[in-house]
Amino acid sequence: MARRKRRNVTRSAAKRGMPPGSLVFTGERKIEQAQLTVFDYDGETLQEIPSESLQGCLARRDTQTVTWINVDGVHDAALVERIGSGFGVHALVLEDILSTQQRPKFEDYDEHLFLVVQMLSWGESSMAIEAEQVSFVLGDRFLLTFQERGGDVFDSVRERLRASKGRLRKSGPDYLLYTLLDSIVDSYFTILEKIDDRIETLDEQLTTTQTANTESLRQIHGFKRETIFLRRAVWPLREVLTSLSRTETPLVEQETRLFLRDVQDHALQALDTIETFRELLAGMLDVYISTLNNRLNEVIKVLTIFATILGTLTFIAGVYGMNFDHMPELRWRWGYPAALLFMLAVVLFMLREFKRRRWF
Amino acid sequence: MARRKRRNVTRSAAKRGMPPGSLVFTGERKIEQAQLTVFDYDGETLQEIPSESLQGCLARRDTQTVTWINVDGVHDAALVERIGSGFGVHALVLEDILSTQQRPKFEDYDEHLFLVVQMLSWGESSMAIEAEQVSFVLGDRFLLTFQERGGDVFDSVRERLRASKGRLRKSGPDYLLYTLLDSIVDSYFTILEKIDDRIETLDEQLTTTQTANTESLRQIHGFKRETIFLRRAVWPLREVLTSLSRTETPLVEQETRLFLRDVQDHALQALDTIETFRELLAGMLDVYISTLNNRLNEVIKVLTIFATILGTLTFIAGVYGMNFDHMPELRWRWGYPAALLFMLAVVLFMLREFKRRRWF
Amino acid sequence: MARRKRRNVTRSAAKRGMPPGSLVFTGERKIEQAQLTVFDYDGETLQEIPSESLQGCLARRDTQTVTWINVDGVHDAALVERIGSGFGVHALVLEDILSTQQRPKFEDYDEHLFLVVQMLSWGESSMAIEAEQVSFVLGDRFLLTFQERGGDVFDSVRERLRASKGRLRKSGPDYLLYTLLDSIVDSYFTILEKIDDRIETLDEQLTTTQTANTESLRQIHGFKRETIFLRRAVWPLREVLTSLSRTETPLVEQETRLFLRDVQDHALQALDTIETFRELLAGMLDVYISTLNNRLNEVIKVLTIFATILGTLTFIAGVYGMNFDHMPELRWRWGYPAALLFMLAVVLFMLREFKRRRWF
Amino acid sequence: MARRKRRNVTRSAAKRGMPPGSLVFTGERKIEQAQLTVFDYDGETLQEIPSESLQGCLARRDTQTVTWINVDGVHDAALVERIGSGFGVHALVLEDILSTQQRPKFEDYDEHLFLVVQMLSWGESSMAIEAEQVSFVLGDRFLLTFQERGGDVFDSVRERLRASKGRLRKSGPDYLLYTLLDSIVDSYFTILEKIDDRIETLDEQLTTTQTANTESLRQIHGFKRETIFLRRAVWPLREVLTSLSRTETPLVEQETRLFLRDVQDHALQALDTIETFRELLAGMLDVYISTLNNRLNEVIKVLTIFATILGTLTFIAGVYGMNFDHMPELRWRWGYPAALLFMLAVVLFMLREFKRRRWF
Amino acid sequence: MARRKRRNVTRSAAKRGMPPGSLVFTGERKIEQAQLTVFDYDGETLQEIPSESLQGCLARRDTQTVTWINVDGVHDAALVERIGSGFGVHALVLEDILSTQQRPKFEDYDEHLFLVVQMLSWGESSMAIEAEQVSFVLGDRFLLTFQERGGDVFDSVRERLRASKGRLRKSGPDYLLYTLLDSIVDSYFTILEKIDDRIETLDEQLTTTQTANTESLRQIHGFKRETIFLRRAVWPLREVLTSLSRTETPLVEQETRLFLRDVQDHALQALDTIETFRELLAGMLDVYISTLNNRLNEVIKVLTIFATILGTLTFIAGVYGMNFDHMPELRWRWGYPAALLFMLAVVLFMLREFKRRRWF
Repeated sequence: MARRKRRNVTRSAAKRGMPPGSLVFTGERKIEQAQLTVFDYDGETLQEIPSESLQGCLARRDTQTVTWINVDGVHDAALVERIGSGFGVHALVLEDILSTQQRPKFEDYDEHLFLVVQMLSWGESSMAIEAEQVSFVLGDRFLLTFQERGGDVFDSVRERLRASKGRLRKSGPDYLLYTLLDSIVDSYFTILEKIDDRIETLDEQLTTTQTANTESLRQIHGFKRETIFLRRAVWPLREVLTSLSRTETPLVEQETRLFLRDVQDHALQALDTIETFRELLAGMLDVYISTLNNRLNEVIKVLTIFATILGTLTFIAGVYGMNFDHMPELRWRWGYPAALLFMLAVVLFMLREFKRRRWF
Repeated sequence: MARRKRRNVTRSAAKRGMPPGSLVFTGERKIEQAQLTVFDYDGETLQEIPSESLQGCLARRDTQTVTWINVDGVHDAALVERIGSGFGVHALVLEDILSTQQRPKFEDYDEHLFLVVQMLSWGESSMAIEAEQVSFVLGDRFLLTFQERGGDVFDSVRERLRASKGRLRKSGPDYLLYTLLDSIVDSYFTILEKIDDRIETLDEQLTTTQTANTESLRQIHGFKRETIFLRRAVWPLREVLTSLSRTETPLVEQETRLFLRDVQDHALQALDTIETFRELLAGMLDVYISTLNNRLNEVIKVLTIFATILGTLTFIAGVYGMNFDHMPELRWRWGYPAALLFMLAVVLFMLREFKRRRWF
Repeated sequence: MARRKRRNVTRSAAKRGMPPGSLVFTGERKIEQAQLTVFDYDGETLQEIPSESLQGCLARRDTQTVTWINVDGVHDAALVERIGSGFGVHALVLEDILSTQQRPKFEDYDEHLFLVVQMLSWGESSMAIEAEQVSFVLGDRFLLTFQERGGDVFDSVRERLRASKGRLRKSGPDYLLYTLLDSIVDSYFTILEKIDDRIETLDEQLTTTQTANTESLRQIHGFKRETIFLRRAVWPLREVLTSLSRTETPLVEQETRLFLRDVQDHALQALDTIETFRELLAGMLDVYISTLNNRLNEVIKVLTIFATILGTLTFIAGVYGMNFDHMPELRWRWGYPAALLFMLAVVLFMLREFKRRRWF
Repeated sequence: MARRKRRNVTRSAAKRGMPPGSLVFTGERKIEQAQLTVFDYDGETLQEIPSESLQGCLARRDTQTVTWINVDGVHDAALVERIGSGFGVHALVLEDILSTQQRPKFEDYDEHLFLVVQMLSWGESSMAIEAEQVSFVLGDRFLLTFQERGGDVFDSVRERLRASKGRLRKSGPDYLLYTLLDSIVDSYFTILEKIDDRIETLDEQLTTTQTANTESLRQIHGFKRETIFLRRAVWPLREVLTSLSRTETPLVEQETRLFLRDVQDHALQALDTIETFRELLAGMLDVYISTLNNRLNEVIKVLTIFATILGTLTFIAGVYGMNFDHMPELRWRWGYPAALLFMLAVVLFMLREFKRRRWF
Repeated sequence: MARRKRRNVTRSAAKRGMPPGSLVFTGERKIEQAQLTVFDYDGETLQEIPSESLQGCLARRDTQTVTWINVDGVHDAALVERIGSGFGVHALVLEDILSTQQRPKFEDYDEHLFLVVQMLSWGESSMAIEAEQVSFVLGDRFLLTFQERGGDVFDSVRERLRASKGRLRKSGPDYLLYTLLDSIVDSYFTILEKIDDRIETLDEQLTTTQTANTESLRQIHGFKRETIFLRRAVWPLREVLTSLSRTETPLVEQETRLFLRDVQDHALQALDTIETFRELLAGMLDVYISTLNNRLNEVIKVLTIFATILGTLTFIAGVYGMNFDHMPELRWRWGYPAALLFMLAVVLFMLREFKRRRWF
């Protein structure tokens, strides 16, 4: 089953018991070949090298231009380590980049800042949210990003780098970091909208047509799971962004902090929405259960009406089926039709009674 | 369905993936033509120009009088941008003004303060709360307000500006800001009262007449949705007002802060009321479900009483319908009426028994 | 219905849309004629004037004696305003005194302290808690109190003022304020005890006699409403008292703060009790619903037992009512009594079976 | 009923409306005669006087030895007052000692520290927790303790004072205070264990034997009440101990604070356990209700199986009880046994069907 | 039953009533013989003595090498005391080491740091989590660890000490402490995964096959218990690690604090997972109860369908079983088959009706 893929226990087994600092990849390999992309730019020039040699990368470390190195596929531990040591990244950071089921977090290592966030996407086949870890290392004039596989979320940023010579090109790597974080958080809303549409549809179904089958229950339960999962990814992100915009480091400029506060606002909005989902789903479960109860009431009313009417008729028939020698009615000429008419009268009377009590 | 209009996911799709700082309107256009209104006043004079030329507006920036420029219809991005740049408003602020599904927030940009709040109204046709974003930019001697469409909430303030030469006319734009915020928060109470009336009516219905149909459930569920929505609008407002009254800025005078604390109190009262609604609705759902259970009990009691009595009678009739050769009762002269009387006696006895056990 | 009187929405409609600072009474007029009472005392002398002229009041402002002016009936806006301006009370304070559905709050206006609290009483006729707003203005050597109508809660304090020359007479108006707050908080406990008695009675009823009728449900729901209402009045009071005892003002002496901490403790105790009520009521609802379920089980068991036994008997009778030519039993001399005995045996066997399975 | 004795409303009625500072006992008198016990010791000597004259007590105030005066039975207001004034205890403290239904609290009066805690014991007869208030006044070289009645919790401390010349004898009254607090908190665990045993027994009963009668419900509800009560006593104690170990007073030595942190840990452990109880009880209620539902399902299945089988049989018998002239089966030689066999076949078929659907 | 072994009340009875500082073991003896293991190492050399004499241990205290003394089996109070006093450990620490049911905690005694954590393992036989207390005393150049019994969690660390001359060997005892804490927290994830697997299996069972028997309920309830237990162990650990990495002590180096933050992250991840379990289990209980309700609905529908159809048929047969003299149908040649056909028609009509209403 597709759902089983995403584990609630995110600290991977492979890693445990190993010495801290061991650079071993501990996730699921998601693409075949790790891919290196380098952007090197300032306000004037832009160099873009899809797959530069590692040596070339490291040479760019000390240039005055902004260097953005993106690695798709962190399963290549050797590659990650060489880039890391080339840029002077702390061993713990490299370890965290390689263990792909981290909680979103932020660490300030003075020389560089380290961020882990979750990139989320809706898996149409698995009908569930899929998560991918993205790590950021922000240093002086460079930004390293590490993804488990390539995604299209960063593509729009690449387009903007290529297209304009605007603020993005003129600013440092901190603004680039902001831009990437912003596009990740924005992508959350695509998922939220997908879920929102489905929840609304389900809610409408439940409240208007009163069709409460076990499928509805399965769906409510499923959305709850997704909501729990989402909250687990977004909740720590809030703290991460707060820490990032408040940390006292020269690596993030004052102006960029203003923008980071904006991403923070969006993360908060995402959390608000998730919270709203939770409450809506709880309400829908209440509606579901009440609808079940209501239906039970209806069914039992039908049973009672039938049982009562049929029981009475059967009893009357039973009386005239008795074998007493002296039952004058049995001898009457119109006894039989009279009995039938009497039964009919009883039925009509009882129906009226039930109607009066609003049983149907 | 009308309800679908208000989305739980408030970060609009159009905006996502766009570079930050792009001034693009991302909401639903709510009125045809953007409208500009300018008030320029001090204690002595008042100039009111419903639709001044933009140029005229900007000229008023540096006068000693208080200038209040109100824009109805923020879908005119060009207009908003020109006003913004004319008054030196930060790019991020303009962006936020244009994306109309913001969480209420407060930002201090030194040169000016920026506030986003929600103006709420009860949509009689949609039977739901409708929200409109109002943005405020408070600068030195000027206040800019941006609404999605014109509303009547600000009209009373306009009246007061025209009518009196009181504190409002004598104070700066910070007091004007307070007055506008106050009328927005006050308008919340109109909605709260509407909901309160309906909740009370429903509650009375549920607890006294015990009529628990699926319509009641649908209503409880609907009010819950509105309450969730309301809380989402008012909760962050509380923080916004706290930040506003505490921020260290010369743009808000000491005396005005006292008044702002008053609006804060009203926001708190609104939150208290919303919380009360939530608890009342939860209680009403409990009552609803209990009532359903109770009714089920009643129906099943009726079923049991009938089934038991009719079953017994049918059995007696069945006995005298048996074809044994030697059943002396069948030959008796008064056998038949005796049997009927016996049945009657059984019915009476059973009814008394059920009554004794308080089954009806 | 009496209950409708107390609104969940406490910010009154009349007030909204009016300029701040408008001194208009916005509550329900609760007594006919506003009443002025003045106490003027120090350790030695005590002057008590039930209904002094306003002029006389103001004259006492600057004396060294403690002046306590109490106004019963704040609907007389003119009176409140004249007293207020006579004692130099801030306009916002006067406004708050007149709008009688405030959240409890505390404001420090340097010149004087302002407190709003709720005086609660149990309305025997409405079977609900009734709230009345009491406002306090503590200044240098004077205390102003404003009530919606006269209550007997302050009477005991008046008695003590008259009777003894103890600490109350020797201390300043801050100690008088404490004494009045103390008597208000104490009066909460009278209400809590009333509710406690009824909750306990109901709880005992539910758990021992297992009588769970809809009346019980209505009562649980009603107590929940009262508890929500109570908490809304007491919760902010806690903060009010904390602020009051911590505020840096020369108007409250160090010794008095110790006493205020004592009232704070009592408010906390009241909150604890309210929280306990909430949990007890939640538990009682669980018991109620379980009892309903239990009863349903019992009824259905009765139904099953009867249906099963009667069904079996009717079937046996039906068999011997069949018209087959060759049914030897029908010809037997003792066939009929044997059949009846057989039926009896079946009944006894089934009853034993049901008993063995603990169905009754 | 025993349970009614412990009131949820702990602020006693007698006290209300009285001037603060009135030294009147407001509890339930729990022992006949107030009892005075004095220990006077240092590392070398120990004097123990079960019932010293008051005068003797006061004389010990200024000695260099540690003086521990314990009063069993605080209903003797005069005694408490004389001791209090003898040792310079604040009037509010004396008042609090006499009103025996205080929330646990800590007050620092510079000259002395004042603590109120609850001593709890399990009332075997009432099957409920019984609370007794213990007040501590820690001064320079003396400790006063006030209990409602004598308990055995302090006895072990007395034994240790008599027996050893260890740390307890060598330390000041702060260490004695710690020792007494420690024995009180330790006594909580005895109660927790009693409740734990019963909860575990009940839980085992519920989950394994599936016997869910109303007695189980009554017990779950009862334990919930006790748990609410316990939490109300222990929760504020946590704050009390934190304040005590952090207060800046020379009355508590640095070394003793370490020990107090230990008691704090135990109080936290007790709270953890209470929280665990709450969750277990909530879980048990869920199990109880599910079990009821399950049982209902079972009963209704039995009903359905019987009703269906018997209904079918009765119908067949009914068919052969019809009086048509031309029913060939009725004339057959083996018609009757064939009919019976047919019925048997129907029964077997239906039973197999129900079994296949796992109805039993 | 195995489950009873783990007590909710963790403060052991034996300890209570004893003077603080009494060094008495108060747990359950888990291994026969206490075992002493000593590692003494620096970057160059490593001495490993499985069971050194106590005297040898103490001699190593003041060497420049790192000394790690591990005691398996803390029931040997004398041994613990001698080691403790040899290394100058505070009496309260020794006491805490011996009472084996502590809440995780951290204490800074200047001379040394003291930590208590829970080592957890999954008891396959008891089908429950088993806890063992591990105490750490970190001093200058030494680390003492105390376990209730030997476990394999520390073995991997021992292997690494023997194998490499890496960071672990080159760093001080603070890094060793980190390594041990890391392996303990890592071992939590093994348990979390075990529970996760079972919860997922159960969830799949519940939502897809709809088999909701009492065994499912028992399991949900059981997992809830384990989750409560887990949270009780991990929650305080979070604070312990925070305090440890923030405490101002020279005993923990700056670099090690970075690593400790990493363990903290893992503890947070474990807590997230536990919280997720709680929510999943709550959701599963909802599904379980809804499934029960659904099933009840199904059963009652079956009952109603059968009762209605059979009742109608029986009634028709009853009519033709009546003994009226004049019932023309009875005389008809094809009356009997006509009656049977009529019955069949009735059955078909009713089945169609029920189908139309989607009853099956």
